[in-house]
Amino acid sequence: MGDGSRVVIVGAGFGGLSAAVALSRAPVSVTVIDRQNHHLFQPLLYQVATAALSPADIAWPIRRILRRQENARVLMGGVTGVDTVRREVVLRNRRIGYEFLVLATGATHAYFGHDEWAVHAPGLKNIVDATEMRRRILQAFEYAEMEEDGHARQRLLTFVIVGGGPTGVEMAGAVAELAHRALARDFREIDPRHARVILVEAGARLLAPFPADLSAYAQRALRKLGVEVRVGTPVTHCDAGGVNLSGERLDAGTVIWAAGVAASPVADWLGVPPDRAGRIRVGPRLEIEGLAQEFVIGDAALSLDADGKPLPGVAAVAKQQGRYVAQVIRARIGDRAPPGEFRYRDAGQLATIGRRAAVVDFGRIRFRGWLAWWFWGIAHIYFLINVRSRLSVALQWLWSYVTFDRGARLITRPDDWPGD
Amino acid sequence: MGDGSRVVIVGAGFGGLSAAVALSRAPVSVTVIDRQNHHLFQPLLYQVATAALSPADIAWPIRRILRRQENARVLMGGVTGVDTVRREVVLRNRRIGYEFLVLATGATHAYFGHDEWAVHAPGLKNIVDATEMRRRILQAFEYAEMEEDGHARQRLLTFVIVGGGPTGVEMAGAVAELAHRALARDFREIDPRHARVILVEAGARLLAPFPADLSAYAQRALRKLGVEVRVGTPVTHCDAGGVNLSGERLDAGTVIWAAGVAASPVADWLGVPPDRAGRIRVGPRLEIEGLAQEFVIGDAALSLDADGKPLPGVAAVAKQQGRYVAQVIRARIGDRAPPGEFRYRDAGQLATIGRRAAVVDFGRIRFRGWLAWWFWGIAHIYFLINVRSRLSVALQWLWSYVTFDRGARLITRPDDWPGD
Repeated sequence: MGDGSRVVIVGAGFGGLSAAVALSRAPVSVTVIDRQNHHLFQPLLYQVATAALSPADIAWPIRRILRRQENARVLMGGVTGVDTVRREVVLRNRRIGYEFLVLATGATHAYFGHDEWAVHAPGLKNIVDATEMRRRILQAFEYAEMEEDGHARQRLLTFVIVGGGPTGVEMAGAVAELAHRALARDFREIDPRHARVILVEAGARLLAPFPADLSAYAQRALRKLGVEVRVGTPVTHCDAGGVNLSGERLDAGTVIWAAGVAASPVADWLGVPPDRAGRIRVGPRLEIEGLAQEFVIGDAALSLDADGKPLPGVAAVAKQQGRYVAQVIRARIGDRAPPGEFRYRDAGQLATIGRRAAVVDFGRIRFRGWLAWWFWGIAHIYFLINVRSRLSVALQWLWSYVTFDRGARLITRPDDWPGD
Repeated sequence: MGDGSRVVIVGAGFGGLSAAVALSRAPVSVTVIDRQNHHLFQPLLYQVATAALSPADIAWPIRRILRRQENARVLMGGVTGVDTVRREVVLRNRRIGYEFLVLATGATHAYFGHDEWAVHAPGLKNIVDATEMRRRILQAFEYAEMEEDGHARQRLLTFVIVGGGPTGVEMAGAVAELAHRALARDFREIDPRHARVILVEAGARLLAPFPADLSAYAQRALRKLGVEVRVGTPVTHCDAGGVNLSGERLDAGTVIWAAGVAASPVADWLGVPPDRAGRIRVGPRLEIEGLAQEFVIGDAALSLDADGKPLPGVAAVAKQQGRYVAQVIRARIGDRAPPGEFRYRDAGQLATIGRRAAVVDFGRIRFRGWLAWWFWGIAHIYFLINVRSRLSVALQWLWSYVTFDRGARLITRPDDWPGD
């Protein structure tokens, strides 16, 4: 542990980790607190959920990443509150004092006031979510193979993905490829190629943050993969048997939630009113009104760009904010000149749809199709955190590309699973 | 599905799967039933438990393995009984008729009449056991880092492995290497090199099935890795705080059970008295006394060699028995000449201890040390079921060998884990 000002960072996602690393040469002591022991490369989490990658390919122990950073320590624990008067972070049975606090707790799923849907339509935020979703998807095929009633069988082979943003598009494409290619010849009673994969989006088009021509391309590419796409179609009800759309019932064995996003309980901790999506409004220096030593970054923050538009909840924003807040802290302790206001440098956006289909948008430069798909794959391998993961992911992808197979088709669950 | 005699195989471990594959050209229809969707390469399961490999490296969907075998189908389901009068296997909500039944359900842990120890000292038989054990081991270090009381911290850093057979020796070596090498520099408050790893064996020496000189070597090699070895020391009590040995209390945060083995509920299903270890005594053709169409193979069977000694519960026995029982079935339907009595061809035995330390025993040929270790590694990669897994395991091992790191140091658990 270094000496100097105590900086506490809650959350070791893209934002928290980049803040910690950017403080490595500052005369401070950094404490990183996370509920998990690992940093997760969330952009590839859907590939764990669809049996293409293993959890260890996209997650690394936080303390391993910060091993050589001598002014940093890592604590695995759940934060239950923040005492901004005494400047302490409250854990279950311990308090950690700070001079500067960086809250980078990310986001969770939002069900728009229907939290009771969560059990029927789980979302995808962490490794347990992903292996549980993998279990549900693979088990639906197993149950269908055992089912003798035709209607029940078709219900089991119907997969609904709610939300047409990047995650929903990626999930829909991956589930379709899993059913129609990887599993195609493995069953005797059912034909997985007859599985229905339905992507439902309330808004007018898929991939709303992208230009309209790329949205239209994504929709065509998904249809080619056998995905039924419904845009302008809000979900009005979820239950154990399926979903209701406006004016239609879809019986489905598996419903996947890729729609709303809501920030973690930071607003509660600080006693500050959140916005509609549960985020904390921050100022141009990522500070919180009325608080001097606390900052919020990443998906937990509502941060506006120069035009007053909210910044998107993507890794690039969180990373830049993490580095920025490190600069602010260094300035406050007299270690550096103060930076100007935070400005997001748009790093572009990518989304993949399926085999040889993706979209890339760098503002003036945009492209799609196989070139975009290769670009997406290489960029994601590059962004993985170490050489082992890069080799492993490259190997798994190459294998899937050549064989159409998925390497991690495991249903893992406790022995006393109900319904066994 | 093929036509012909219906053969049902319960369990897709080494025995059941080899029986299924050996029937691929027989005029029968084969149904393989397993509670899991995957075949597991159990000899490397301890490497998942100690964060070296991922589950998908050593487990493959059963139906993927049998994809091309047209006379075979796979059902994922839990068997609850066998009706030998009507010749039906009973599942939760279905019955499957058979002409021939092969019971290959393997073994589970035995606590010698102390089943209440199971919760404190879990064993290692499936993927969920392994990721749960990985969680316990890694979390012990995380809790120790947070712990301020010296005695409690030392307790958290004490790991007891019960049972000095191959699994116990492998686990002890792997936990010691994890603590003393992979984690060595990742903590700030604790020094994982001070973790105690204690291997407890009730019998007079480690690796009892091996020659005495190899046992002695294993004990020396473990001590060099920093493992405390206690032989001739039965465990008399287990609780949440540790274990009692004869005359000594060991406070330990993690206790791992690698001792007894008991067969699955086959005896109950058949209404046949089991032996002391829960196995069904089978005759020289793997048949059960009083039953004509049912066979038991692998760890679930008590099968005697020519000298009247029970065959060991190892993969090679199960595989040979699986192939043998397929021959018997083919003979019974007139497809082949009947084989002689079952004879186990000893395939030798291997056990690894740690980095560059292993023992190999082929009867007349035996060796140990780095050569045995390389032999062990190459043999295990060779036995993995497909090219992807071989490449992936080779990559992970090479990485660990060069960096001393472990690639799968993940604590995965539901968000609402108690104690969070």
